[in-house]
Amino acid sequence: MTIGVVLLSGGLDSATTLAIAKEQGFECYALSFSYGQRHSIELQAARKIAASARVEEHRIISIDLSAFGGSALTDTTIDVPEMPTRGIPVTYVPARNTVFLSMGLAWAEVLGACDLFMGVNAVDYSGYPDCRVEFIQAFEKLANLATRAGIEGSRFTVHTPLIEWSKADIITKGLQLGVKYENTVSCYQPNGKGEACGRCDSCRIRKEGFQAAGFVDPSRYY
Amino acid sequence: MTIGVVLLSGGLDSATTLAIAKEQGFECYALSFSYGQRHSIELQAARKIAASARVEEHRIISIDLSAFGGSALTDTTIDVPEMPTRGIPVTYVPARNTVFLSMGLAWAEVLGACDLFMGVNAVDYSGYPDCRVEFIQAFEKLANLATRAGIEGSRFTVHTPLIEWSKADIITKGLQLGVKYENTVSCYQPNGKGEACGRCDSCRIRKEGFQAAGFVDPSRYY
Repeated sequence: MTIGVVLLSGGLDSATTLAIAKEQGFECYALSFSYGQRHSIELQAARKIAASARVEEHRIISIDLSAFGGSALTDTTIDVPEMPTRGIPVTYVPARNTVFLSMGLAWAEVLGACDLFMGVNAVDYSGYPDCRVEFIQAFEKLANLATRAGIEGSRFTVHTPLIEWSKADIITKGLQLGVKYENTVSCYQPNGKGEACGRCDSCRIRKEGFQAAGFVDPSRYY
Repeated sequence: MTIGVVLLSGGLDSATTLAIAKEQGFECYALSFSYGQRHSIELQAARKIAASARVEEHRIISIDLSAFGGSALTDTTIDVPEMPTRGIPVTYVPARNTVFLSMGLAWAEVLGACDLFMGVNAVDYSGYPDCRVEFIQAFEKLANLATRAGIEGSRFTVHTPLIEWSKADIITKGLQLGVKYENTVSCYQPNGKGEACGRCDSCRIRKEGFQAAGFVDPSRYY
């Protein structure tokens, strides 16, 4: 079997991506980050998802992006917006996906893997620059130049199966594959019980996705 | 003044790069990593270098690359070689410079900076893939696509002033700029007193550099 390193946030998209990687026959190694996010409850979600998907291994690595601040997700002095905003929202975490993919690349190289999976999505997304196809392609080029494996002829692929899908498509596919969405947390500001606010961008996109797909959202909202 | 984020390892090259960034008029923010390296004494060296260069700020961020292993520098079960080896040596840390530059990019974006400095060197280097011009150029492209700043028109530059220099050139320039090389640690396996082995790749390249430049190496060897 071919090894795939799957970035697993604890949200709906990465849980679905993991299920797709498994469906495609990859032996999955899941990687999550404790990066100083407000909603560390998502790491509990990631653990449940990884266990439910029976991954080969699940690692949670600490990287303190909150040391830099600059985002509502890592800096408690910046409020999470509850109304849609124009442009790139304050929930954008500077260089987050670049850092996460770099760490995924490090693990992949040690495992002898060339396949990374990431649940980025350019349709029902929040306008983040590091969720776009151009970004992913640039990272693949970098990975081939950055590594011993690349020099020795390996070609890295960052699989982003969801990138062109609507949230409804993602949910429909995930339910077909048996993803337990009750284990996922999408909210940017869940409470201590893992209940979602229902008002932030991420909650809104999730709710609309379940509605459009015609399924009941198993999230608990406070 | 223009802000520059300078990656500072505690070694000779990054200390010289910091001095060059200051000479070029940059307001310098130094960034070091506690990444599970064997030779954490290099972080003490980084602190001394940052203080001596009077940087605006010096941050040391923890990223546990030793969780992945795969290198003699992060895995104590792999010996540091004491004879030159062919190809990319076991001291290569998978994706290390990609991870470090990504973190530098995160801080730069928060600081509103577009200039990163890194002391990579493609001449007297150890054969690491992520010390080459092609890698640096690919990272710049990625940075412009990855960030809010890039989307808004900023263009990131990774300055690598040493990339084509010999070790002797680097040392000569550094001494002209007043770099205190007694504060730097190059050895891959220094002892607890910060004394160098004199036998690893990095020690050998350093020694030969001082000899070629005609200066006395202030390192203490055990």
